Amino acid sequence: MQIYKAPLQDIRFNLEVLGYDEIAGFSKYEDFDIDTAMAIIEEAGRFCTNELLPLNRVGDEQGVQWDPETREVKTPDGFKELYKRFVESGLLGLISPVEYGGTGAPTLVGIAMGEFVTATNKSFSMCPGLTNGLIEALEHCGTEHQKNHYLTKLVSGEWSGTMCLTEPQCGTDLGLMKTTAVPDGDGYILNGTKIWITFGEHDWTDNIIHMVLARLPGAPEGIRGISAFIVPKINEDGSKNGIYCAGLEHKLGIHASPTCVMNLEDAKGYLVGEAHRGMRAMFVMMNAARLTVGLEGVAFSEIAYQTALEFAKDRRQMRSLDPAKQELDQPADTILVHPDVRRQLLNIKSTTEGMRALCLYVAKQIDLSKNHADEAIRQESDDLVTLLTPIIKSYCTERGFQNVSDAMQVCGGAGYTKDWSIEQFMRDERIAMIYEGTNHIQALDLVGRKLPIEGGRLARTFGAQITKLIHASKEDPRMAEFLEPLKKASKTLTAVTMQLGMKGMEDHEEAGAAASNYLNIFALTSLAYVWALQAHAALDGDSRFHRAKIKTARYFMHHILPEMDSLVAIMDAGKQHMMAFDTEDF
Amino acid sequence: MQIYKAPLQDIRFNLEVLGYDEIAGFSKYEDFDIDTAMAIIEEAGRFCTNELLPLNRVGDEQGVQWDPETREVKTPDGFKELYKRFVESGLLGLISPVEYGGTGAPTLVGIAMGEFVTATNKSFSMCPGLTNGLIEALEHCGTEHQKNHYLTKLVSGEWSGTMCLTEPQCGTDLGLMKTTAVPDGDGYILNGTKIWITFGEHDWTDNIIHMVLARLPGAPEGIRGISAFIVPKINEDGSKNGIYCAGLEHKLGIHASPTCVMNLEDAKGYLVGEAHRGMRAMFVMMNAARLTVGLEGVAFSEIAYQTALEFAKDRRQMRSLDPAKQELDQPADTILVHPDVRRQLLNIKSTTEGMRALCLYVAKQIDLSKNHADEAIRQESDDLVTLLTPIIKSYCTERGFQNVSDAMQVCGGAGYTKDWSIEQFMRDERIAMIYEGTNHIQALDLVGRKLPIEGGRLARTFGAQITKLIHASKEDPRMAEFLEPLKKASKTLTAVTMQLGMKGMEDHEEAGAAASNYLNIFALTSLAYVWALQAHAALDGDSRFHRAKIKTARYFMHHILPEMDSLVAIMDAGKQHMMAFDTEDF
Repeated sequence: MQIYKAPLQDIRFNLEVLGYDEIAGFSKYEDFDIDTAMAIIEEAGRFCTNELLPLNRVGDEQGVQWDPETREVKTPDGFKELYKRFVESGLLGLISPVEYGGTGAPTLVGIAMGEFVTATNKSFSMCPGLTNGLIEALEHCGTEHQKNHYLTKLVSGEWSGTMCLTEPQCGTDLGLMKTTAVPDGDGYILNGTKIWITFGEHDWTDNIIHMVLARLPGAPEGIRGISAFIVPKINEDGSKNGIYCAGLEHKLGIHASPTCVMNLEDAKGYLVGEAHRGMRAMFVMMNAARLTVGLEGVAFSEIAYQTALEFAKDRRQMRSLDPAKQELDQPADTILVHPDVRRQLLNIKSTTEGMRALCLYVAKQIDLSKNHADEAIRQESDDLVTLLTPIIKSYCTERGFQNVSDAMQVCGGAGYTKDWSIEQFMRDERIAMIYEGTNHIQALDLVGRKLPIEGGRLARTFGAQITKLIHASKEDPRMAEFLEPLKKASKTLTAVTMQLGMKGMEDHEEAGAAASNYLNIFALTSLAYVWALQAHAALDGDSRFHRAKIKTARYFMHHILPEMDSLVAIMDAGKQHMMAFDTEDF
Repeated sequence: MQIYKAPLQDIRFNLEVLGYDEIAGFSKYEDFDIDTAMAIIEEAGRFCTNELLPLNRVGDEQGVQWDPETREVKTPDGFKELYKRFVESGLLGLISPVEYGGTGAPTLVGIAMGEFVTATNKSFSMCPGLTNGLIEALEHCGTEHQKNHYLTKLVSGEWSGTMCLTEPQCGTDLGLMKTTAVPDGDGYILNGTKIWITFGEHDWTDNIIHMVLARLPGAPEGIRGISAFIVPKINEDGSKNGIYCAGLEHKLGIHASPTCVMNLEDAKGYLVGEAHRGMRAMFVMMNAARLTVGLEGVAFSEIAYQTALEFAKDRRQMRSLDPAKQELDQPADTILVHPDVRRQLLNIKSTTEGMRALCLYVAKQIDLSKNHADEAIRQESDDLVTLLTPIIKSYCTERGFQNVSDAMQVCGGAGYTKDWSIEQFMRDERIAMIYEGTNHIQALDLVGRKLPIEGGRLARTFGAQITKLIHASKEDPRMAEFLEPLKKASKTLTAVTMQLGMKGMEDHEEAGAAASNYLNIFALTSLAYVWALQAHAALDGDSRFHRAKIKTARYFMHHILPEMDSLVAIMDAGKQHMMAFDTEDF
């Protein structure tokens, strides 16, 4: 059973709430008014539903095969052709620069439609996702020659991209990296082993362009001695470069996405950016990637919700507890009448729509930060992106997993079988909590890097957004029920931020112990903010959609936002009870 | 990577805390003093680790095969022989009556060792689990002839048992059942289709004894018209009976456990108990099963914890945030030094040990309820079993799933691959939240059936246990830190119970909306109770084990118990926001 309908109405509503016209007002985006944007998004929805979804299960069942003789990877039946159609549809180069053949659409449009690609075929989506990351990194850090040589082919989809960071002894801790690069003519010779390389080898494109981190001779130890290199699978002269797939991981999910061990055996590479400053290029790729990984949580929540809702409308078991709702001409009532089924569905719906709104909000800030004429606004937007990216990556992937599990629960035994696809969504979603920096690494990034910037400037910028909304809507008595919980959450967040600042400044272990709960408190406050924004806009609407928005906003405030209470209490307990354990006590 | 060590020390400690001698004092159990009990449990641990665990992954990978020609099921390589060794080890008939060839050990011993069987090979464990359920049902409801004819062969493991309840149109709502039984000579002729039948067909035993629910001619509609029948796969005269496997489900996990569609085609059956009273026999099976399903959450939490701990002790990434803990002769520190890794491990450890203690506590109550000379104590114990069974089934399976997911998170990318077995644990554990009555059905059972008995007698009985502990230990100043949170939780529980009683009496939808959160509030209070019990006993101990118990009890009180706060706030929101949605609003 495969069900998916792109949530177009919700996206258009969000674009309006966010004041999309401001984005379309930039000369760069003059061809993308809201109707054009929505037409693109709608077309993307059609492509994903009609083309990507039907091959999602095939990919899961067949998986990818590695041939130890040729060291090549075979992808599932139909995926190569699907990739061709995807490229032709224009979805790959949608937000890439026009000068390299892209469509040049706003990031907001790219994020809106990106949700559909993940929802309908996560494994497939990873290859274009990495290519887009490489495009962005080369735009920022590549030489003119590199841009000219690689970008057009990447944007056109003729070549694909990868990120080669991890090695067996280093995942989170890239300072332990061992891969070496030695100068050789116009480039470098690289040797080493990389693991977890998504689409490191496949049969969709003529060439694969790897972005590889390695150490130059005499490089400083640790993370400050890492440089970035482009290592193509096929050299410019058409010969095979010394980079090979040495095997695949066998994973819980994303079976159609090859996760490769890549051996660099005297591979020819080209420096990107400055020597020893490789993390810079990599962070460009990673930051963009972290937002889209967060979006995965939204995507899976949405498709799992639609599946569970379909089940709940169809399946009849037991009678409504309210005699007035009983359909006595049927042997039983649909399970949608039961309060607990509603509770589970609304937990999913209210967080999914909240998370989508937050992702689109950040996407808009990316567009503002790149294009606004006013430097102060560019800075403010950039602050919000910097602050909210780790929050989105961690919270949305964790909640997404819970949402998929809740959707499975709605379907009962049927949800546990392959007949309904929720079990695949569960397996495919789970990796999002781990890759692109585990969720706790996001929390440390928030607490250790983002918050301390200028004594909390980023958090203050975000707080000012909340204050602005409160001021703009406080005269409307209908807003009180949304503003009160938002104010309360915001006050709590301010208090725990101060508490964290004081404790964590003196004792970094206290900050580490608090970070994950703190991130979730921040996330819930952010969702309360975007829900209040949405409610404000929906109050003046007159359709069923708008009325349902208000109901969902209410549900969020009363049934999800109070999750903060426990997090605050637990955060308050500090580090002492975890650090009291000796190794042998565990 | 497969790691498992039976948690023997924790079990012996719990037996002591629970006053095991009281059980061993019953004449029926005179051969089972604590040392004998522990010797049996230890031997079981050895068998599970050495025999069941090595085939766990083989079973997952090979799965079960159904042959549409013969309608027979082939189990994975080695499982048939494993079953033979399991039976020979005496583990199958451990708690079965001596008169039918069982060992006659206390339930407490059976539950203690039952955890290991699930942890090391869940798929395998389901067949003996069902056989034991059938043994119990026949002991209670079978005729003398049925007992003599079936029990010896079931206890010896020559035959296995099943429960055939579900049909395509009815899972939760058994009143919709359609399978028919028509009198025929000394028995009945049954026709219909049953689904989700675990080990409905397999190749381990000569015969399979199905307990089938069906309707007699003229039976009342709904659940009051259902009768129970024994339907053997092979008739007494050696001929094949008309019950066939018509296919297998394809599932997220428990691949080595055949989940069968069973067709009854003029199958010969024999009435168990009275006509139209079939749910009685089935509830005997189900109640026993619900406790062991809850135990699955403990089992998977334990094995996932051990795996994640091993990883955390071995994997080195980053430096400790406390300079004093840095091992500078190593390239990085073990991740066990990081507060968040400890947080995740201790979330698992503190809930696992708490849930185990609660399961063993209920197991002891089962022994008391069956064997104590004083009728008042038998009643009190039975009350506690009746009350706590749905709580254990729901809370432990839900927390177990979260614990396995947290263990995966500790292992990062490695946890997502098949190299470490956590991904299998996740898939195998998830069904426990669904079968034997979904977790929400447990919550409705608690709120709708168990609480109303004599205006809350069961909850008062449980409250009296807490009061007893408080009185017994309040003079000890060291207990204050455990008694205070327990008292607070207990007070909250009393308050929400009253609130639920008042709201839910008038409006059943309010009770339905609150039930799942209420169950979790009850569960957390129960865990606080068994943690205080354990702390009380451990305070006088002088070993590392006892000191770690105290630390873990503290961790529970400060980092897990506050999860109640949010549940209370959300429960307080009532039904209005979920019931406000029309079908089209979802």
